[in-house]
Amino acid sequence: MSEHRSHPVATAERLQRAGGGPVQPRATTPLQPLGFADVRLTEGFLARLQQENASTSIVRGHEHLERQQAWTNFENAAARVVGRTYHGPVFEDGEAFKWLEATAWEHGRSDDAQLAEWLEESVALVASAQADDGYLSTFNQSAGKRGRYEWISYDHEIFNMATMIQAAVARYRASGSGDLLAVACRAADHLAEVFGFDKRRETCGHPLVEMALVELYRVTGEQRYLDLASFFVEIRGHGTLTDPTWQGWTSVYFSDRIPVRETVYPEGHAVRAVYFASGATDVAIETGDAELFDALRRQWDNMVETKMYVNGSLGSRWEGEAFGDPYELPTDRGYGETCAAIASIQWSWRLLLATGEPRYADLIERQLYNAVLSGVTLDGDRYFYVNTLQVREGAIAYDDRMGAAGRQEWFGCSCCPTNLMRTLASWHHYLATSSDAGLQVHQYASAQLSGGGLDVRMGADYPWHGEIELSIEAAPQDVRELSLRIPAWARSATLEIEGEPVAVEPGSYARVSRVWRAGDVVRLLLPMPARLTRGHHRVDAVRGAAAIERGPLVYAIEHLDQEGVTVDDVALASTELAEEWRGDLFGGIPVVTAPARNLPDGEVGRLVAIPYFMWANREVGPMKVWLPLDA
Amino acid sequence: MSEHRSHPVATAERLQRAGGGPVQPRATTPLQPLGFADVRLTEGFLARLQQENASTSIVRGHEHLERQQAWTNFENAAARVVGRTYHGPVFEDGEAFKWLEATAWEHGRSDDAQLAEWLEESVALVASAQADDGYLSTFNQSAGKRGRYEWISYDHEIFNMATMIQAAVARYRASGSGDLLAVACRAADHLAEVFGFDKRRETCGHPLVEMALVELYRVTGEQRYLDLASFFVEIRGHGTLTDPTWQGWTSVYFSDRIPVRETVYPEGHAVRAVYFASGATDVAIETGDAELFDALRRQWDNMVETKMYVNGSLGSRWEGEAFGDPYELPTDRGYGETCAAIASIQWSWRLLLATGEPRYADLIERQLYNAVLSGVTLDGDRYFYVNTLQVREGAIAYDDRMGAAGRQEWFGCSCCPTNLMRTLASWHHYLATSSDAGLQVHQYASAQLSGGGLDVRMGADYPWHGEIELSIEAAPQDVRELSLRIPAWARSATLEIEGEPVAVEPGSYARVSRVWRAGDVVRLLLPMPARLTRGHHRVDAVRGAAAIERGPLVYAIEHLDQEGVTVDDVALASTELAEEWRGDLFGGIPVVTAPARNLPDGEVGRLVAIPYFMWANREVGPMKVWLPLDA
Repeated sequence: MSEHRSHPVATAERLQRAGGGPVQPRATTPLQPLGFADVRLTEGFLARLQQENASTSIVRGHEHLERQQAWTNFENAAARVVGRTYHGPVFEDGEAFKWLEATAWEHGRSDDAQLAEWLEESVALVASAQADDGYLSTFNQSAGKRGRYEWISYDHEIFNMATMIQAAVARYRASGSGDLLAVACRAADHLAEVFGFDKRRETCGHPLVEMALVELYRVTGEQRYLDLASFFVEIRGHGTLTDPTWQGWTSVYFSDRIPVRETVYPEGHAVRAVYFASGATDVAIETGDAELFDALRRQWDNMVETKMYVNGSLGSRWEGEAFGDPYELPTDRGYGETCAAIASIQWSWRLLLATGEPRYADLIERQLYNAVLSGVTLDGDRYFYVNTLQVREGAIAYDDRMGAAGRQEWFGCSCCPTNLMRTLASWHHYLATSSDAGLQVHQYASAQLSGGGLDVRMGADYPWHGEIELSIEAAPQDVRELSLRIPAWARSATLEIEGEPVAVEPGSYARVSRVWRAGDVVRLLLPMPARLTRGHHRVDAVRGAAAIERGPLVYAIEHLDQEGVTVDDVALASTELAEEWRGDLFGGIPVVTAPARNLPDGEVGRLVAIPYFMWANREVGPMKVWLPLDA
Repeated sequence: MSEHRSHPVATAERLQRAGGGPVQPRATTPLQPLGFADVRLTEGFLARLQQENASTSIVRGHEHLERQQAWTNFENAAARVVGRTYHGPVFEDGEAFKWLEATAWEHGRSDDAQLAEWLEESVALVASAQADDGYLSTFNQSAGKRGRYEWISYDHEIFNMATMIQAAVARYRASGSGDLLAVACRAADHLAEVFGFDKRRETCGHPLVEMALVELYRVTGEQRYLDLASFFVEIRGHGTLTDPTWQGWTSVYFSDRIPVRETVYPEGHAVRAVYFASGATDVAIETGDAELFDALRRQWDNMVETKMYVNGSLGSRWEGEAFGDPYELPTDRGYGETCAAIASIQWSWRLLLATGEPRYADLIERQLYNAVLSGVTLDGDRYFYVNTLQVREGAIAYDDRMGAAGRQEWFGCSCCPTNLMRTLASWHHYLATSSDAGLQVHQYASAQLSGGGLDVRMGADYPWHGEIELSIEAAPQDVRELSLRIPAWARSATLEIEGEPVAVEPGSYARVSRVWRAGDVVRLLLPMPARLTRGHHRVDAVRGAAAIERGPLVYAIEHLDQEGVTVDDVALASTELAEEWRGDLFGGIPVVTAPARNLPDGEVGRLVAIPYFMWANREVGPMKVWLPLDA
């Protein structure tokens, strides 16, 4: 057995204690994630979605990966025979590993026996597929088409290993098992052998390894993983990658045109750009590199200001699944890949931990409800890869990613379904954090929270209603601060402490410091009247139009619900919105209605809007988010 | 010498007399093109452009083709050695042939000795490269990578031969030389041997052969060329083509999803779709197939109504250079390939000849000035492949087709420059037609026209001024009708016959029947006040905005000219437009100005608009056509 194989054991004294969700900084950040067992969803909408994710998405995901023969690729690699038939795209390993990560989180949460069995089987298979020197990417190992790192921009080898490392970290944190972590360390050691400023000065076409290595550093305490992550962050942005596939825009596509410290706007392939920014943020946090951190905050600001749809979707070009130029945000041909919004949540979560600023949690909420959950049906069985904001009458659906094609069971490139699975399985970890001062609640749902010295039971019928009740179940004798995010979308908000109402400021954290006692109750009232949102004047597609929002939700009109008006021709005839609870729709939702007029013939009717993320759960047809205002 | 090689001679008795421009129907159409020598531009804007085309574009085109080693490909094919290095894309032959067509038209017009030499050299080379059985496509002949018709959807073999056939027809019509025509007939005979309902039931990925074969039929009278064109029209639209490159949307991309008779909207790759429609129209005209003809008219109507930009550009998706769904017309990421507008002019010309309806000539005018001439600098030396309607501040220009990249000397795929050359070299043929009744003038410019019994000298400072004077130079003793198109863009128009004014109806032909005498003068007054045009309510990008037009020209604001306002932020503060003659710009043009306001800061200034097609003739920066209206 080589030195590498025994690695995690050798470093046991630096090993981070198991437990915790995604992102457990070693550096001292203003906010710290809660422990793995210290937060859970108890009931309500998100809890049900998380349950659908477990009982349907992950189970069906296993079937899809079997059908795609993703595991066969590992068997072939384990057999050490080159020239075997390879199945799926070159990043198929990555899909399997994202499923594995989802399963690891879910298993930690539920202790399900079937999941335990799948995890043990697949980890053993993955370990056996790994090359003796730690390399692992089954296409290059077994297909016999290209050697290692021969087409580094395209083959996703480092990306594949990175997803495995992320799965290993999840498995360790969720269940304490180090089986996959040993494989991850061997892979990371291999990468550290091959790549570096004084070694191979190259990087992967698809970023992710930056985040993965920092997380592995966090778990193992191995400085060289952080150093390698730092290398991958710095080497990018110098025209390092070359790829004939992308011709002139290779460096744009790969976020490789400008060094990260000088980048003003994210550009190119959206998922890659945001994964990369997230990983660079991880590096900045752990190395305490303020210059790098500030550059990333600026990039985030510019992304949100100039390259994001109202629902939080990112990526406005089909060509290259890419960010467009600033303010280039068509609603019909926007891309808005589900993975890009997930990547953005990962980025914002890191920035939130490192700053405590509410806008990062605000965006996490916006993207979860409107750009991530839009990617999966309510029953967890069908997916959108692209989250369009408009489907017109007469749209030709020739690509299964198109809105007009409806939701799909799986995709040839099925990054989004597996990414959704790992996100939903670990979602509760994004609810709250702790600090020396106390507990911070960032997202609302019925949940049980422990942190900052406080045990809290939170009750909320979110995102439908804005009344949130927090009951203190245990508290120490000293002063503890309870912080509650007051979303920027709120027009007003009231906090009631022991029945005493206090107005609180939207776009900030309401902080209550006191000696708490079990039985204390705090009520937050976030009125959610439906509202109209206007867009930026440089964005063509939203000129003279408004989007309906209500609470954290962006609404859309879908052809099925309209009363006397048609989606393609309708204009808002008045800005007076009405709301109605519709128990017949999706188990009960508030719809928003407004007087409307068909523009060509002037016919008057009423438009009926549902939460955008729920569209195409019935049948697929015209839909739009931005509603022209009758001039 | 085979039977095929002597073909044109054998059919000499059916040979159409040399002379004439593009499209010389054998069927009796309501309108007939003028003879080759019966129309010429004499002076003014278009005459100067045509001269720049001759002295700069065609000459520099020859250099570019030399540099790209386009002719070397023919030398390699002529040497009958397989495995030689091939230069350029698989359709490089087609670029050379489009240049050859341009040169043939221009040579016929000018009788230039240099052009004559180039023509003889290249025709001899092409003839020597042709395989003994008539096949000609140098990539497949000499590169040794793929056999004949092995990858028929991609390799452009039939397309390449079609461009050669078009060049041969042009050469024959322009100068009476049958040298290339013999090569063309051999190629067409070869195609007729291989393809047909009872032969190989396949077709080329890139349509064009349909038009080319009908034109060859027109020249030679050979029915089998028309039959073969008809076959290529009917075989498409049944999922005939398969191509892994385009995956799910293969049939959409190739206009192969729906048979032409059932097609409602053109779809897929715009240039291919419109070339195909033009060829199908040719077939319908020559076969007298009214059902097919009506289907094509409906397709044209729907294209103009739902898939065309205000400037006449076609194709709203970069992905696949394709038509989008109806009303999907973003101004920033629209494609608007120069070739697509050229193809559309070819289509409209056919429909005009076959119907005499003015809307086809209206569109030809719109597209010439605003979507074709926008593709070349005023000095004939640099090109746009893509005609965008907006460039924003901060646009990244990584692709040489992008508006923000500015005009280019040449492209890797240089279809647009060579297409522009052949269009401009033959442009005068689109000015007028004749019929049994008399002469119809469709486009205005200073020109000499003979047809329908009348010799007419036309004087116009078009497109800047709308006063057009037609002087009869010769006329017979009987009644002749002079028809003048009154453009649909005109708000009013007056015809003066011998000083007597008569109001005439925009969107129609003003027809004057009388016994004309030499010296008679007709004046047409087309007032050209600047006007604002609104878009269709289903088109997002133009909502709440207007485009400035003046006469046949669409205007744009370019960053260089604005007074106190910026392109990205400006809104029209008033709909009161003013005009100013600016002798300092481009040798003198009318600019349009309007009170304007910067939306973010309310700063007041004046926007200055120039003809859209002239943008990026100075330096490249923000530009837009659609101007937000201050609400």
